[in-house]
Amino acid sequence: MGKTDWTQLWLTYHRVFEGNCTWETVLEGFAASDAVVSNALSEFKRGMDSIGCDSDSMTLKITKSDAVPAEGYSIKGDDNGILLEASDERGLLYGVFAILRQTACGKRAAEVNETASPSNPLRMMNHWDNMDGSIERGYSGESFFFENEEIVINDRTVDYARFMASIGINGVVINNVNVKGAASYLITDRYFDKLKELSEIFEGYGIKLYMSLNFASPIEIGGMDTCDPLDSNVISWWEKKIKEVYENLPGLGGFLVKADSEGRPGPFTYGRTQADGANMLADVIAPYGGIIIWRCFVYNCTQDWRDTKTDRARAGYDYFKDLDGAYHDNVILQIKNGPMDFQIREPVSPLLGGLTKTNQMLEVQAAQEYTGHQIDLCYLIPLFKEVLDFHTHCAPGKDTVADVVSGRTMGNRLGGMAAVINTGNDMNWTGDDLAAANTYGFGRLSFNTDLTAEEIAREWIRQTLNLPAKEEDILCSMLLRSREIYERYTSPLGIGWMVTPNGHYGPSVDGYEYSRWGTYHRADHLGIGVDRTDKGTGYAQQYYPENAKLYNDPHTCPEELLLFFHHIPYTWELKTGKTLIQHIYDSHFLGEEEARGLASDWDSIKDAVPEEIYTRVKERFDLQLDNAREWRDQVNSYFYRKSGIADEKGRTIY
Amino acid sequence: MGKTDWTQLWLTYHRVFEGNCTWETVLEGFAASDAVVSNALSEFKRGMDSIGCDSDSMTLKITKSDAVPAEGYSIKGDDNGILLEASDERGLLYGVFAILRQTACGKRAAEVNETASPSNPLRMMNHWDNMDGSIERGYSGESFFFENEEIVINDRTVDYARFMASIGINGVVINNVNVKGAASYLITDRYFDKLKELSEIFEGYGIKLYMSLNFASPIEIGGMDTCDPLDSNVISWWEKKIKEVYENLPGLGGFLVKADSEGRPGPFTYGRTQADGANMLADVIAPYGGIIIWRCFVYNCTQDWRDTKTDRARAGYDYFKDLDGAYHDNVILQIKNGPMDFQIREPVSPLLGGLTKTNQMLEVQAAQEYTGHQIDLCYLIPLFKEVLDFHTHCAPGKDTVADVVSGRTMGNRLGGMAAVINTGNDMNWTGDDLAAANTYGFGRLSFNTDLTAEEIAREWIRQTLNLPAKEEDILCSMLLRSREIYERYTSPLGIGWMVTPNGHYGPSVDGYEYSRWGTYHRADHLGIGVDRTDKGTGYAQQYYPENAKLYNDPHTCPEELLLFFHHIPYTWELKTGKTLIQHIYDSHFLGEEEARGLASDWDSIKDAVPEEIYTRVKERFDLQLDNAREWRDQVNSYFYRKSGIADEKGRTIY
Repeated sequence: MGKTDWTQLWLTYHRVFEGNCTWETVLEGFAASDAVVSNALSEFKRGMDSIGCDSDSMTLKITKSDAVPAEGYSIKGDDNGILLEASDERGLLYGVFAILRQTACGKRAAEVNETASPSNPLRMMNHWDNMDGSIERGYSGESFFFENEEIVINDRTVDYARFMASIGINGVVINNVNVKGAASYLITDRYFDKLKELSEIFEGYGIKLYMSLNFASPIEIGGMDTCDPLDSNVISWWEKKIKEVYENLPGLGGFLVKADSEGRPGPFTYGRTQADGANMLADVIAPYGGIIIWRCFVYNCTQDWRDTKTDRARAGYDYFKDLDGAYHDNVILQIKNGPMDFQIREPVSPLLGGLTKTNQMLEVQAAQEYTGHQIDLCYLIPLFKEVLDFHTHCAPGKDTVADVVSGRTMGNRLGGMAAVINTGNDMNWTGDDLAAANTYGFGRLSFNTDLTAEEIAREWIRQTLNLPAKEEDILCSMLLRSREIYERYTSPLGIGWMVTPNGHYGPSVDGYEYSRWGTYHRADHLGIGVDRTDKGTGYAQQYYPENAKLYNDPHTCPEELLLFFHHIPYTWELKTGKTLIQHIYDSHFLGEEEARGLASDWDSIKDAVPEEIYTRVKERFDLQLDNAREWRDQVNSYFYRKSGIADEKGRTIY
Repeated sequence: MGKTDWTQLWLTYHRVFEGNCTWETVLEGFAASDAVVSNALSEFKRGMDSIGCDSDSMTLKITKSDAVPAEGYSIKGDDNGILLEASDERGLLYGVFAILRQTACGKRAAEVNETASPSNPLRMMNHWDNMDGSIERGYSGESFFFENEEIVINDRTVDYARFMASIGINGVVINNVNVKGAASYLITDRYFDKLKELSEIFEGYGIKLYMSLNFASPIEIGGMDTCDPLDSNVISWWEKKIKEVYENLPGLGGFLVKADSEGRPGPFTYGRTQADGANMLADVIAPYGGIIIWRCFVYNCTQDWRDTKTDRARAGYDYFKDLDGAYHDNVILQIKNGPMDFQIREPVSPLLGGLTKTNQMLEVQAAQEYTGHQIDLCYLIPLFKEVLDFHTHCAPGKDTVADVVSGRTMGNRLGGMAAVINTGNDMNWTGDDLAAANTYGFGRLSFNTDLTAEEIAREWIRQTLNLPAKEEDILCSMLLRSREIYERYTSPLGIGWMVTPNGHYGPSVDGYEYSRWGTYHRADHLGIGVDRTDKGTGYAQQYYPENAKLYNDPHTCPEELLLFFHHIPYTWELKTGKTLIQHIYDSHFLGEEEARGLASDWDSIKDAVPEEIYTRVKERFDLQLDNAREWRDQVNSYFYRKSGIADEKGRTIY
């Protein structure tokens, strides 16, 4: 099933209107022969034929207008049709998808009305797909890009591009950032033909193809004995290689690089800086208009748990802040939202906005690695929003992360948002049908960071399931509550981890406590948490003074991050008047109960949902309940056994 | 290297005497053409030529004597030669190896003198080798029996048989008890030719070939829809199959079966008893003189950690005791030494001797799954001896485990000892050269359960390394102390586990605490241990009254098993006057220190040991020290953080 049939996700185009009408299309200033334009018009017809229309005949008039910003659109309907204005083909495409979205959400032509242009220059999906077909941290089947070390192109590829275009994605990295084996050969003629075909499909939907690059390519595929970025032979090798790549793939957007991280090679090997590495590649690729996206996920992954001075949370800032301003114009640093690794709750990375002279891109993870493996419901848009809205205090009036990565703060040209995508070749693309709200939501949010989590949820529900109002409200509420529910039954107050090592699903309170990964909670019989204040690791001081001060004091530190910044006694009184230990018990009992609530909410809308979707999601809720129960009982037992402090309410703790 | 060259282990035949002499051989009552006799005489020549001899010419006279028990021998030397008496070919072979052993250990012909016959009817090695070449819980490379689903036979096979014969092994199970994939087809004509060849090599060294059997064979290879042992079609299928097997492999000893365990199929699936399953196969195989060895490792491996009533330790007795007497004569129950799974310290399984009307075989593990992966030095013979010497109180005067499994207690014909072997295709066979002392020791001990751990260690050292007296003393002391050292730095007082899940190397105190495996320590802020008394799970009551009483009371329970049987407060005073928590700290600091002592002892004999052996073992000690340090610090930190009780001596705990 997975490989031969698949759903249309939010492009299902449910019938909303009873009748059908003929749409006449008028193009002004755009060529119908352009691939993007042609795809947009086909999509328009496909969507409108399916959604329906209660008039007889209507006109879609598309006009080129330089007044509309790049990639933007203006759409305005009346009783006779809709006028779409755009200054470029991508804007036209996005405008068509906007009309389809509004129509699918129930608006008649006369009600269609929107002017929009993207918040972020780059809106990217990062696939962690391996060429053997596996997906690192994939929870939805195998890759639809790769199989047995070959590139797969078929109808599904086109549908994927349609989905991405419909939410405003304009760049896709198709292969895992950990580039090994055959993936190192993606920049050789072994794969150019297929890559070109893929790149052209993408371009027809306004998407640039990107690839992850192996920094050690000169050694691994070039047969050299070094990949030192300052070695002139290495530079020549790259010049020749990149020339060859662009001769074959003229539309390539550039490369994503994970260097010096978790065993990946990088400039540190040769005593060079991260800037040395990134700039060398950037200079080589600049003549072709390409960019280098350099990940900041660099830390010591062979830490000693006994060492309380080294702090993994500090690593990104420590490695990259000093080089601020040293990166060339076509380098972008890609920074994970938090300083650790996609936990359910982390502070915002101090690098975001901490860098003031460097292109920055926010990296989030739609794939639910630590947030429930697309089994547990966890709508992540509220988390992404929190990050975007965070005031870094880097510049007056335009200091949010959204300001920084969009380019508004620094006036720079490159920046944006990237998500580690949560798709695979499962027939529903995301394993959990409801997880597609994260795929959809990331795209929409990266296009318009002002959208609320609820607006996005409702758009997604309407287009995907077209539920009656009451059922829509229920599902919308489920999505909006799900992240905090997941947080409640997992690790408390920002401390993170406590997950089963390697797999990262299910509880193991001490699973990472004595490991080499820098991921500790430091719980003893009196308290728990990591002292990251000026008396501890000093991590809090990596923020601008306003935030540094706030985080440094346990009385002002936002409580949801209390244990991330402070080692706190179990008897500490929280703002609610509860002790810390009682909060741990209460939130875990509550979280598990609420998870059961989610499952019964889902049951309550059973009749409004297609049976196969109901069943698939129901099966996941069954697993989520097991998981929530395990988390509740293991965390509560762990802390009861360690603290000896009983639950005030006398509930069962083992 | 591993596959094309290998060491001769304890058959290295170091030169002990300066000269060489001619040995005349006189055979009386034995045929020189018999494979076993011929192999014995070749081995004699090979060994003596290498060891040397200070006379001119000598005679080895071999006489058949029915006065010598089966498989036994009498050897007696004088200035002119040696007289070997035996009643059968195996006895002759073992007698020759005994002469070689004594000579290699420095005895002149005139000093050779021993009368011996095996303590146990069956002395077996169990290989957990898979047909893809991997070895379950193998720490010495890949299988030398299997590669790419084919059987491998070469010179190494013959050497393996020589080694086994030299220590008295008379049965070998070549494939993993978890029979899957190609291994299910070992009883089909796909493998008969090769198996016959292997079986004949084995027979030339007095070894019977055995195989592990897939209880679900009627389904998996027979295409039936059931393997119900009482189904007449199933029985017919087995009758035909076993007939076919014995037509092709007339020398086959029989089968080892793991049923209804850890996901393996078995009679429980059909509502049948373990006896129903074993007896059916036994009846089918009886006409060919074959036996069925049925493992008692049956327990619930999907336990809920919250459930304190279910006790995995009880399972073997609970499942098998009631059926005592129901098993047919050619069935042997193979029982692990302890009720859990080869931990560094467990009580003896109450099934051993608890069954009084059933053939029993003791199963131990030479492969160091939980005892250091053949990285950490852990000479296991003292552990095996403790088990053999344990008084079960099943019968007056002959109640030890050695009495029970040898057949002395019940007067039964079948029984003995089996070891999960620790070999692989590493050039030194056992990864750690010193781990071969366990391979050697198991064989010798199963042949003569009266040998001491020290006698065996010295025999092994002399034959393997032929060290000067001082160095032999040092190495012997290292071996004899190693098990308790390993115990000191790992889990305390019999509680076991606390290992990294799945891999089973290195510490993870809570690694199995919230798992499905029934392996819990139940530590909280006040104490640790599992209550297995009559107030707890009642496991202690599975023993005969004398032992049940002893174990039931924490004041009389042997302290090395205290936490296995009792939940004990950290402040409990041990016989040494120390509190439990102080004992935990002290033993972990001491164990780590002693491990360092072992490593420096090894350094101190460096010059007396071949360089390549020195280096290989040294590398392992380096790893052992890391491991011991991790164990020390993680266990101490865990209990300090949990109890809040400081180390009296103020040493560093994290």
